[in-house]
Order: sequence, then structure tokens, then C-alpha cells
Amino acid sequence: MIVRGGYNMQLQGIYAPIPTPFDAGGQVDLPALLGNLAFWNESPLQGLVVGGSNGEFALLSEAERLETLRLVRENLAEDKHLIAGTGCEATAATIRLSKAAAGEGAESVLVVNPYYYKGSYSEDALEEYFLQVADNCPVPVILYNMPRNTGLNLSVSLVSRLSRHANIAGIKDSGGNIVQIAEIIAASDPGFAVFAGSASFLLPTLLLGGRGGTMALANVLPEQCCRVMDLASNNEWQAAATLQLGLLDINAAVTRRWGVAGLKAAMDMMGLRGGKPRSPIRPLSRDCRNELKQLLEAARVL
Amino acid sequence: MIVRGGYNMQLQGIYAPIPTPFDAGGQVDLPALLGNLAFWNESPLQGLVVGGSNGEFALLSEAERLETLRLVRENLAEDKHLIAGTGCEATAATIRLSKAAAGEGAESVLVVNPYYYKGSYSEDALEEYFLQVADNCPVPVILYNMPRNTGLNLSVSLVSRLSRHANIAGIKDSGGNIVQIAEIIAASDPGFAVFAGSASFLLPTLLLGGRGGTMALANVLPEQCCRVMDLASNNEWQAAATLQLGLLDINAAVTRRWGVAGLKAAMDMMGLRGGKPRSPIRPLSRDCRNELKQLLEAARVL
Amino acid sequence: MIVRGGYNMQLQGIYAPIPTPFDAGGQVDLPALLGNLAFWNESPLQGLVVGGSNGEFALLSEAERLETLRLVRENLAEDKHLIAGTGCEATAATIRLSKAAAGEGAESVLVVNPYYYKGSYSEDALEEYFLQVADNCPVPVILYNMPRNTGLNLSVSLVSRLSRHANIAGIKDSGGNIVQIAEIIAASDPGFAVFAGSASFLLPTLLLGGRGGTMALANVLPEQCCRVMDLASNNEWQAAATLQLGLLDINAAVTRRWGVAGLKAAMDMMGLRGGKPRSPIRPLSRDCRNELKQLLEAARVL
Amino acid sequence: MIVRGGYNMQLQGIYAPIPTPFDAGGQVDLPALLGNLAFWNESPLQGLVVGGSNGEFALLSEAERLETLRLVRENLAEDKHLIAGTGCEATAATIRLSKAAAGEGAESVLVVNPYYYKGSYSEDALEEYFLQVADNCPVPVILYNMPRNTGLNLSVSLVSRLSRHANIAGIKDSGGNIVQIAEIIAASDPGFAVFAGSASFLLPTLLLGGRGGTMALANVLPEQCCRVMDLASNNEWQAAATLQLGLLDINAAVTRRWGVAGLKAAMDMMGLRGGKPRSPIRPLSRDCRNELKQLLEAARVL
Repeated sequence: MIVRGGYNMQLQGIYAPIPTPFDAGGQVDLPALLGNLAFWNESPLQGLVVGGSNGEFALLSEAERLETLRLVRENLAEDKHLIAGTGCEATAATIRLSKAAAGEGAESVLVVNPYYYKGSYSEDALEEYFLQVADNCPVPVILYNMPRNTGLNLSVSLVSRLSRHANIAGIKDSGGNIVQIAEIIAASDPGFAVFAGSASFLLPTLLLGGRGGTMALANVLPEQCCRVMDLASNNEWQAAATLQLGLLDINAAVTRRWGVAGLKAAMDMMGLRGGKPRSPIRPLSRDCRNELKQLLEAARVL
Repeated sequence: MIVRGGYNMQLQGIYAPIPTPFDAGGQVDLPALLGNLAFWNESPLQGLVVGGSNGEFALLSEAERLETLRLVRENLAEDKHLIAGTGCEATAATIRLSKAAAGEGAESVLVVNPYYYKGSYSEDALEEYFLQVADNCPVPVILYNMPRNTGLNLSVSLVSRLSRHANIAGIKDSGGNIVQIAEIIAASDPGFAVFAGSASFLLPTLLLGGRGGTMALANVLPEQCCRVMDLASNNEWQAAATLQLGLLDINAAVTRRWGVAGLKAAMDMMGLRGGKPRSPIRPLSRDCRNELKQLLEAARVL
Repeated sequence: MIVRGGYNMQLQGIYAPIPTPFDAGGQVDLPALLGNLAFWNESPLQGLVVGGSNGEFALLSEAERLETLRLVRENLAEDKHLIAGTGCEATAATIRLSKAAAGEGAESVLVVNPYYYKGSYSEDALEEYFLQVADNCPVPVILYNMPRNTGLNLSVSLVSRLSRHANIAGIKDSGGNIVQIAEIIAASDPGFAVFAGSASFLLPTLLLGGRGGTMALANVLPEQCCRVMDLASNNEWQAAATLQLGLLDINAAVTRRWGVAGLKAAMDMMGLRGGKPRSPIRPLSRDCRNELKQLLEAARVL
Repeated sequence: MIVRGGYNMQLQGIYAPIPTPFDAGGQVDLPALLGNLAFWNESPLQGLVVGGSNGEFALLSEAERLETLRLVRENLAEDKHLIAGTGCEATAATIRLSKAAAGEGAESVLVVNPYYYKGSYSEDALEEYFLQVADNCPVPVILYNMPRNTGLNLSVSLVSRLSRHANIAGIKDSGGNIVQIAEIIAASDPGFAVFAGSASFLLPTLLLGGRGGTMALANVLPEQCCRVMDLASNNEWQAAATLQLGLLDINAAVTRRWGVAGLKAAMDMMGLRGGKPRSPIRPLSRDCRNELKQLLEAARVL
């Protein structure tokens, strides 16, 4: 039986959607991942997301998705929460992978909507999809709205209806439409947790009732991201706003501008194991790496 | 000589972009406008915008735009600030109308970018447009970004460069992209005033350093809008957030959902003089009016 | 009384939507226009459109729109047909300008849909707009669909319904969606004339039942444009296709890529009077002019 | 060694991108597929595409994609050409599946561009992707442009460059932008085969030099689709145009309007084995089925 209240108390704070390192031959590099885990384990992060967009899930096989999850589970600090990205295009595939992820120890799953047959994915079809996944998933489901990648947007009315399902615990909204985020918070079940999907709108999301963020920047600047949240929790909104504004450029570099390639390059520069993205994503060009380095230095991160 | 500092101290707070009432024959109804002015004059609003999108400027002749401005100028309470919308498609037309508006007593002008020849309006062309207007306008210029109507977006880099011009005082950003708003605040001249262009993202804008808002909802709920700002100024962010969330549905009704027709219908219901929009904008249907009435009643506005 | 059949027999063939020349001071240059008219009068063009997008109508005052129309009317060869662009944002303004244009001798009017208050311009609102214009216009109305500039698209069902009105004679569709054009032809009144709005899809439009084209390229290459149509009329489709393919690059240069600035630069190179566009449209840069010159030389036009 | 000329002589005509039938339990229904094959084998189709969008490839496992391919290969009439859809998100996965498909007897592969990490898929990245696939695929590669599903468009310049690769034989363009199709034909290698990706723009594509079509409608109306092509080949363009216009409504029903669900419902009505799509695609509602039935009856297909 799902006891929502208890679980949801954990579902707040800052999560890092971790990247998947690859070795020179393009295979998942588990030792490199172990090295990064040591860094995140010591950070103030609430938890990690394995197999999210930054984990290049769409470029991994099902076996690789589970293999990385297993390694993280076995090596994650006890106080950290573990979320697995398990969205697939087919409903049955998502359910199967969600069950497997729960079996590997994921405490909840992050499920992106299907996105190839856009013309067929009406609001009704998406609702049915998420309800079937939630009905059949042994752990709580977190919706994942990522319009820039999927070309679809989970509407306020859809999210609001889904928030009533006992096994749908929250949403990671990466769209960045703050009015939509506000409307979701206002219209959804009170226990429903809304997360900012990028650091660039973390603070406004928290102000309006969001419960945290799961965002690329948390991989490289976990302390600063958590500090925004701590300041907000302590009602130090002006100090939080100053910090928020200072994170915009670096956040853009590891998300909107350069994507996973930018995130991995920043990790390399900061002593973590980034490496190359998997093809067809290309590594950052030399010019962009130089620009990224200047951004990190200007922010006194390097 | 433009003394920016002094002027800009006034350029903050909540402004109402007022609608233009029409009589049964479709002509501008100056007595109705006078009636509305009495209401706004007694409100805590910082000022009014005449000839903005809610004023149906695109449906008015140049003479009508100036005629309404003159009436407002002559009847506006002394403590209120007056902004005139003066954007036209041609640069020379905007300059001519801006001079005329200043001549009528507008204290600043709100200038939307041209929008018909989208393919020709590169960032460079838009920059040249605004610089020419600012160089030739006797009063400060406020940029007006309204992507939903114009199909164009004023980018952060463009706005940031324009913010350095001594006669460009601020921006009304109606796009609602809070990351863009934050980036504009971070990248622009410190004296540059950023206004939320709709009540639905007023509070997040203020949190990140915005100076106020100019928004449809302020026509009908000026006290509530000003109260959001007062609470923010007093560091009562949580109370402000609760109020902000409560304004979302009504704000959508008078903007995104039903536009000027919704705003005018709400004014009629609340004892102001709304009336019909000018064709081709259609008045609100009976069903929508009923729904609007319920929204207003639910918010205890009626 | 409108006798549709008789009139519509004329409404076919290739029309040039002529640009408006400006003098060094930025005013309409009537002598330059006269010079260009001499060229078009001797061409095989069916007629001219004054005050279309290429005429920079959105940058002209109402007086300028009528002034250029009058000059063309007085100097147009007797066998040419004259169409006036008369679309304004307000319904009443469009009706007034359409009546004035008819008074000046326009044989039909080309009416773009209003486009600023996109959220308010439902299909119903646009239908009402065009019906009111058609009911009140003394000469036949041609719909003008220009999604790239207006951000709106006139749907097949809307156009099909409007095609039944006795005073709506046709459409210039500049969207270039050949499936939509085919569906309009299949669904509209048999007497309704569908025109390609750009030379790049003239031949496919003719193949599916279109009656001609009104397009920027016809200003500079009227013979080639008319030859595509002649070949199609003679069932020489393969020869027409070869010619069509050869016009693509030049057409893109004077439309999608460089717009009115490109068209005017090409006119200058070919001995016509192009000159500068009106601000905020910028003249073609030196680099682009060089590229344009090469395109024209490669096509043996220069 | 790839002998382009010889192979490409086959790559023309009308192909059906066949749907994948599922049984009551949601598994691939091979007997149903066999039944449909009997119909297509007797048709005038040039060949079949297995594992395209209509085959719900994005909802199938790799094993299912190969299993259906194998069954078709073993039961396809000798004179038919077999194309396998093999696009995956990761470059290595696409290469692996392409090799496996070739091993199963596919004569060429249809490769959609990757589409999840849109922000990372610059033109350069897409070029590298297709070049790597083409270099490593034992059979010719056909590019697949499907902007409505992928949210990306393969540009003219990209396709033109790729057309020079000895193992890239053609493109299925489902975007329906006839100007782009014309520009691709004009700019690409003369041996490069351009296919219309939907029946609604088959004839214009053929007129401009296209070599055929691969389209949903060919599954249910193969004779009519082939007849459009035969008429065009015989220079009977007017008759072809009449037929083309008559196919628009049915084509929309099995593509843009109702997608795979519409196609499968039409197959059921016509005595083929359509069945339900795989979740999250929903079967056609009763109302839509009724409307579809009327469309088919009006076209005298039922």
C-alpha cells in the first residue's frame, strides 16, 4: 500500500540528474560514475536522478539504464534519495522498466511523456498513459514535463487531474513557464510536489510553493543550488535572489546553450568525470570550452 | 537634457494599461473614459498607460490615440504618472507619434517593436529602430516586449544593449519568460526598470529585481495588485505568494483566455464602463460572460 | 450589382505586387514609380497589386497608400488589371480604405487578415471580419493569407466558407503549404480563384487548379513568371517544371531570405528603381548585394 | 561495393509503409500481417517499408522490429522491393539495427534523424550522424524527414550535401513543404531519389522531379496511388491532378487527422487486418470511425 504522506515528506529539496559517463570505446564507464558518486555523496544534495535527460537515457539501452541504476543504488550515501528515469515511448515498456527500476531500489520514478506520435498524443491519451503507469508502478511516479525535447507540454488541467492519483507524487517541470508552474501549484493536490526542472527558475518556483528542483547545475554546483533553497526556507528571499541571478549564466551553459556536452565539459574542468556524450551528441568545441572556462572562472568556480 | 536618475525614481509600481471605451456607434466614448478615470484616480495605482494593447491601439487612428491621451492627461490625478503607447510600424511614424504624445503631456512612452515584416526585423534592425526612437523622443522610452501579439521576442542581449541608452528607461515584458526576465535584470543597466507585463508573473519579477508591473488586471483589481507589491516591498514574501496565486484565474480571464473582451466584460460587471471591443475583436459570448461572473464571484470581487 | 462570372474571367494570370520607391528623404518617390510602371506596362503581366506586402503597406500612411494607387491607376496600361491592398487592423478602417481604393479605380482589393490581437482572432472573428468587408466593398475582395508575417493562417474550412460569398473572388495564399492550397481548391466554390503568393510554388498551384500567381519575382522577371504559366496552360508541364526549378534561388533572394530589401536591390541591379526600403526595414548589406548579384548573373538575368 | 546506378533504378514508384498489427494481448500479430501481405503482394506497389512511423516503430522493441521484417521478407512477392526503417536515437544503435536489417534481407534502410536532444542536434551533428550510418550500413540509406513527429527539419543544404554520399540513395520527405522539396531536387545529386512522404503532395513532388512516394494511403488504396504516378509518367497531368484532389480527404484521415489509429480503422473497414494501435496511441473513437466510414463511402472505396 502506498502511504503518500510519509513518502512525500522526503520528496523535496535539490536533486542532481546525473550524467552517464562513457569510456573511450563509447561504453558506460562505471568506474568514472563511481568517482562522481563520491563527490555527490558528500554534497548537501537531497538525492540523485539516474536516467534522466542529462543521463542521456534516450541514447542508452534498457540494460544500460538498469546497470547504471544498480551501481548508483549500491554506492549511494544512505541519506540520499534515489529517483530513476523510466519513461519509454510505449506504455508497456515504461511499466516494465519502472518495475525493474523499483526492483533495483529506486524510491520513485521520473516518467517523461511519450513524444514521437505527437499528433496522437491528445491530453486524453497522455492522461491514460500516466494513469496506467501509476497504477502498475510499485513506487511513486513523478511526471516529467520537458517541452523543449518532447515538443509537447503537460497542461495545467492534465497535471492537476493526475495529481489526484495516490501514486503520482509530483512533477519535474522543465518548461520554465512560471505562470504554468504557479497554476499547477494552485490547482493540484496539496500533497503534490512541484520541482523546478532547471536552476534558472528555481527560486521563483520555491516562492510560489514548489518543493525543490532537479536540475543539471546541481551536478557541478550542488552547494550553491542547495543554498538557494536554504535561504528561501529561512525567508531570506533577497539574498536568495542575488544568488539566483548569479547562477543564470553558468546554468545556461550546462542546459539551454550547450546541453549535456556543456555539462560534461564543466564536470571535466571541475575535476569530475564528464567525458564525451554519446553520438549523435557531439562534445563541446574548443571555442565553446574556452568560453565555458571563462564563465566558470568569472563565477569563481574554477 | 534627460536626467535619468531623477525620472526613474518615479518609474516603479503598478500601472494600469487602460482600455478604450467605444459608444454604440463604435466611436471613442470619452464620457465613459472619464467615468473610469474617477475610479483609477482614487486607486493606489502609480499611473496609467494610454494606448497600450489593452487600449486597442492597433484598432485606433493616430488622432484617436492622441484624443484619448489628451482626455486622460487633463483628468488624471496629480500624483499619477502617465505613459503613452506610441509604437507604430514605421520608425518615422513612431517618432512623430511619440513627439505628439510628449506634447500632450505623456511623461514617458511605451514602444512596441514593429512586427509585420518579421523576416526583415533582425536584432540589428530592431536595435536601430529603438535607438532612433530614443534619440528623437523628448521623454523616456520604455520598451514593450509582447511576443504573443507580435510574433517576435526582444532578446536579452538586445535589451541589455538598449538599456545603456540614456533615454531608454525600462521594459514592459509581457512574454512571461521568467528566465529571460531574470537575465535582463542581471545584464541590464542598474537604472533600467523592468516591469512585469501581466499580473500572473508580477511577484516572481519583483523578487528578481523588477520594479513593478503594467498589467490588465490592475484596471479592475488595482488594490490587490498594489498589495502584492507592498507585501514584497515589506519582505512579506509568503503572504505575497498566497495573494499572487489567488489572482491567477482572474488574470487569465482578462488576458490570455479572453483578452480585451474579457477585460471589458469584467469592467462592466464591476460597475466600470467596459463596453464592446472594436471589430474585429468580438465581445465576450454569453457563456463566457457567465463563466467570468463565476470567477469574479469566487474571488469575492463581485 | 456584382456579376461574379464576368469579373472573375479576368482574375487569372500573373500579377506583380509592386514595391513603393522612396526618395532620399524617405518620402514616396512618384517619379521613380512612374519609371517602373513603364517597364511593367510593356511586360506580359496580367496586372499589378498596389499596397501589398512588397509595397511596404504597413509602413505607409493611408494617404500614401491612396496616392500611389492613384498614380498607378492613371499610368497603367489599359489591358492591365489593378488590385489594391487595403487590409487594416480595424474592420471599419479596412472598409473605408477599400471604398476609397475602389473610388480611385482599383478593380479589386486584396485584404490581409488583422493580426495584432492574435488571441482574439478566432476563426469566427476572422470570418465575420471578411464578411463585413465583402458586404461593404464596392469591388471584389481577394483574401490574403500571409502566415509568415501575420502569425495566423486562414484555414481551409474558413476559406471554403468565405468562397461562397458573391463578393469574395479569390485568395492569394503566400503560406506555400501545397496541401492546404490543394484542399482549398477542392473545397471552395468553383468560381473562386486561388493564386500562388510566391513564385516558388507557382507551378504546383497551377497544376492543382490555381488560377495564377501574385508574387514578388514578377516585378523583376515578369516574362519568366508568365512563361511558367503559359507552358502550364499548353500542357507542357515538364518544360514548366524545369523553368520553375530554375527560379527557386532568385525567388528566395527576393522573398524569404532578404524580403523587400532583396527585391529592391535586385530592381536596382536590373535598371529599375528600387532604392531603400523604409525604416525599420534595412537596405541589403554589401555582402548580401554581392551574393545577390552572383545569383542574378548565374541565372543570366544580368 | 555499392553500385549506385544499378540499385537506384529500382528506387522509384509507390511504397506502402505498412502498419504492425497487434493481437488482443498487445503482441505483434504475425498471422494478421501475413494476411495483409497477400493483399499488398497482388497490388501494383513497388515495395513496402517495414518499421516506419506507420509501423509504430517507436513503440516496438528492436527484436520486434526485426521479427516483422523477417516475416515480410519471407513472404514478400519477388518483384517487390523491401525497405526497413532502422532509425534509433543513438548512432551506434542505428548502425547495429541497420546491419541486422540488411542481414534479414532489407534492400535499403529508411533512417529518421534522432530527435530527443533537439538543442544538441545542430546541422553538423545531424550530418555526422547520417554519414556515420551511411559509411557503416551494408545497404543504401534513405533519409527520413518527419518534422511533425521529430520537431526537427532536415534542411535543403544538409540534404544536398548528404546526397553526394555514395550510400545515401534518397529521401522520404514527410514535411510537405513543396518549396523545400523542389529545392532539394534542384540542389541534390542527380541520382538522388526524392519521395513524397504523404499522398497529399505526391503529384506536385512528381511534377518537380520526385521519384515516387512512400505513404500511409498506399496501404489501403495502392491502385489509386499508383495510378497518380502512372498518369504523371504518361504526361496526363490534368487527369492526375483530378485524382490527386480526390484523395485529399481520405489521406488526411489516415495521416494528419487520425494517424495510425485512422489507418488501422480504415484497414479494418476494407477487409484488411488493422486492429488496435499500441498504447499510448488510442484506437479511433466510435464517432471518428463513423466519420471515416462516410469518407470511405463517399470516395466509393467501401
